[in-house]
Amino acid sequence: MVVVRRTSRDIRSESRLEVMHALLSAGEASRNELARVTGLSPATVATVVSDLLANGVVTEARLTAGRVGRPTTTLRLNGDRGRIVGVDVAETYVRAVVFDAALDELSSAEVAKDEHHGETDYVIDGIVDALDTALGRADATRDDVLGVGISLPGGMQRRSEVSVVVPNEAWHHVDRLRQRIGLPLVVDNPLKAIATAELWFGAGRRLASMVTVNLGTGVGAGIVLEGRILRGATNSAGEWGHSLLALDGRRCRCGRQGCVEAYVGAAGIQQTLAEIAPEHPLAAEPMQREFIGALAAALESPEPDPAVTETISRTARYLGSAIADLVAVVNPDMVTLTGWTAWALGGHLVPAVRERVVRESPGDSAADLALEVSTVRGNSVATGMATIALERFLGDVGLLTTRVPTAL
Amino acid sequence: MVVVRRTSRDIRSESRLEVMHALLSAGEASRNELARVTGLSPATVATVVSDLLANGVVTEARLTAGRVGRPTTTLRLNGDRGRIVGVDVAETYVRAVVFDAALDELSSAEVAKDEHHGETDYVIDGIVDALDTALGRADATRDDVLGVGISLPGGMQRRSEVSVVVPNEAWHHVDRLRQRIGLPLVVDNPLKAIATAELWFGAGRRLASMVTVNLGTGVGAGIVLEGRILRGATNSAGEWGHSLLALDGRRCRCGRQGCVEAYVGAAGIQQTLAEIAPEHPLAAEPMQREFIGALAAALESPEPDPAVTETISRTARYLGSAIADLVAVVNPDMVTLTGWTAWALGGHLVPAVRERVVRESPGDSAADLALEVSTVRGNSVATGMATIALERFLGDVGLLTTRVPTAL
Repeated sequence: MVVVRRTSRDIRSESRLEVMHALLSAGEASRNELARVTGLSPATVATVVSDLLANGVVTEARLTAGRVGRPTTTLRLNGDRGRIVGVDVAETYVRAVVFDAALDELSSAEVAKDEHHGETDYVIDGIVDALDTALGRADATRDDVLGVGISLPGGMQRRSEVSVVVPNEAWHHVDRLRQRIGLPLVVDNPLKAIATAELWFGAGRRLASMVTVNLGTGVGAGIVLEGRILRGATNSAGEWGHSLLALDGRRCRCGRQGCVEAYVGAAGIQQTLAEIAPEHPLAAEPMQREFIGALAAALESPEPDPAVTETISRTARYLGSAIADLVAVVNPDMVTLTGWTAWALGGHLVPAVRERVVRESPGDSAADLALEVSTVRGNSVATGMATIALERFLGDVGLLTTRVPTAL
Repeated sequence: MVVVRRTSRDIRSESRLEVMHALLSAGEASRNELARVTGLSPATVATVVSDLLANGVVTEARLTAGRVGRPTTTLRLNGDRGRIVGVDVAETYVRAVVFDAALDELSSAEVAKDEHHGETDYVIDGIVDALDTALGRADATRDDVLGVGISLPGGMQRRSEVSVVVPNEAWHHVDRLRQRIGLPLVVDNPLKAIATAELWFGAGRRLASMVTVNLGTGVGAGIVLEGRILRGATNSAGEWGHSLLALDGRRCRCGRQGCVEAYVGAAGIQQTLAEIAPEHPLAAEPMQREFIGALAAALESPEPDPAVTETISRTARYLGSAIADLVAVVNPDMVTLTGWTAWALGGHLVPAVRERVVRESPGDSAADLALEVSTVRGNSVATGMATIALERFLGDVGLLTTRVPTAL
């Protein structure tokens, strides 16, 4: 509850993060290049690099013969330091992605999950199955793993409990999960994961403020302010999917009426189609990802489907209004769209959404707002969770004053 | 746009703020007491106090004979260092409040303002009139003034312009304001002012996150995260009054439909009463503050007025839903209510609002939320603007790495 005072130890920690981020985007860099890119002094870079080398997180890459003077050693993140696994537990699947310690993806495995089942053991079985399969595909053993990060739907709670935004994901068994996994573990929610991915791999690091909007079965926002994830008092900041679009509107699966998710979540988009054309065959598609994929296909077909076109138009209106609310409250520099609905439909949605956001946001607060589909590809929840697990590991070896709150 | 890196200079600046806050709440304190309260080392406190003494911001108060050893010098903020003025330009009045440099209120003056007029010269005349009257009442001259902080409705813009959330407050004449005032000036919006007041005088300093909800003609939120005001990309963060309560709902004066303000702003509350009882005499009251005052009187009368009771009940429902949206996105530790509607009706609203916030917020994210009428009394917009002006002054004399963005 109390404001954490920043110490010079925090500043050293941030300098290390800056250098790691610079190496992550450059691949390889000399100490001089790192000083130029990060704005840190050459002396600070030298100290930071020496700390990172000592812990094996960074390695010397090769000697480059400069045009003048002595050859320079370049540095890179040391992928061989170990393996990190990010796991995305979604409503319709569990996906585990194995990364090396430079956060390069090595392998992945997905286990289908019936979106109508959320029993603890069923989900844990899926996690263990996906994890072991993915590790096998990367020729890795559990001994290689520096950390596992698992994203669970629903707001994370203090006291190592998980609360339920989504009623059918009644997670109160994190202890059992920890026993079954048997590896250093962090658990967080998908909003914090996508925000972390955006912060490390996307636009987050360059901006004072950004919001990543996740569009899938669930809907939410990852909020990054001044280079840090907004977590909130109970780690549930960003649950914008369960803020109001319409008082007394559609019933949301969270129990509330009129939530944003009830309009722009995959099931909400399907309900919009059903309102426009109740007999449309896609209105009866039982699987959400199939439904969204079919919408995208219809939009790209030479034969326009007026019901689909109108569905996209209304969805853009709903999404634009809801993003304007985020602009009103948070007023970010940038909003990115991510998640499988955004990958499938983003190109069709963005122009109309942007127009509505600009019109509906207070004054001209959205006039210069960047709004686009995220450049972070792949499974950004898994990527973000692997990154949180790496941050946790760096904290454990004393390199970061880690702020990861939920370490199990 | 770029993330500002925190330096050791920022840390010194924050230590000075900590010591000033401690003196502000304690009134007087010894160096040892300051170290205990702030958690800073005695050496840091000694350095900070020495800086503040050198600039005359702090003064040695008196010698206290301790129970053992030498007498101890206590310190206090030096009110005589000069005068600071905070000005609240509201829709219905302009109020100037003169403070000494210890932020103790010395005098104030209010000039009534026709809420239907917002011409620049009319408003500037009111500001100058209120300022000079208040200074006269404090026996102060312009030479005594270290700074003036003026809150203008509508979002502040970069490039020293003021944009308009409120269409009839078309402020594009800040330069003229600066010429007429002729004193060191900061201009900000009321949301940033109330957040600053909450940060210095209320609960803001003790909490990781808090939101202050302002209820008057306009409605908005001051957001404080980790001891700092959330300003946003265009200084319009917190414009929650212009986020949606109801898609396609009531027309808001900002042009959008369904804004929170259209339901819980003073005019919105009056509209609710008119919907319940179109012929009710209060539905025709032309002045907003009279209307809210009459509502409060009716609630305290021994004869219950069912239309008024129902108006309060619906307003609590609207406000509770809208605050639940803030909890969903920001997830603060605390929400306080401020502004003249909150002073008049807060006691009647809070229990029902709290119940609705807890029920409508995601999961149990509001279970431990503190929700109450702000403890900052008086005109918190004027207090907050005086505080921002003081921060600006402290920045000018090199004591703070000030983050006040709009200094004119």
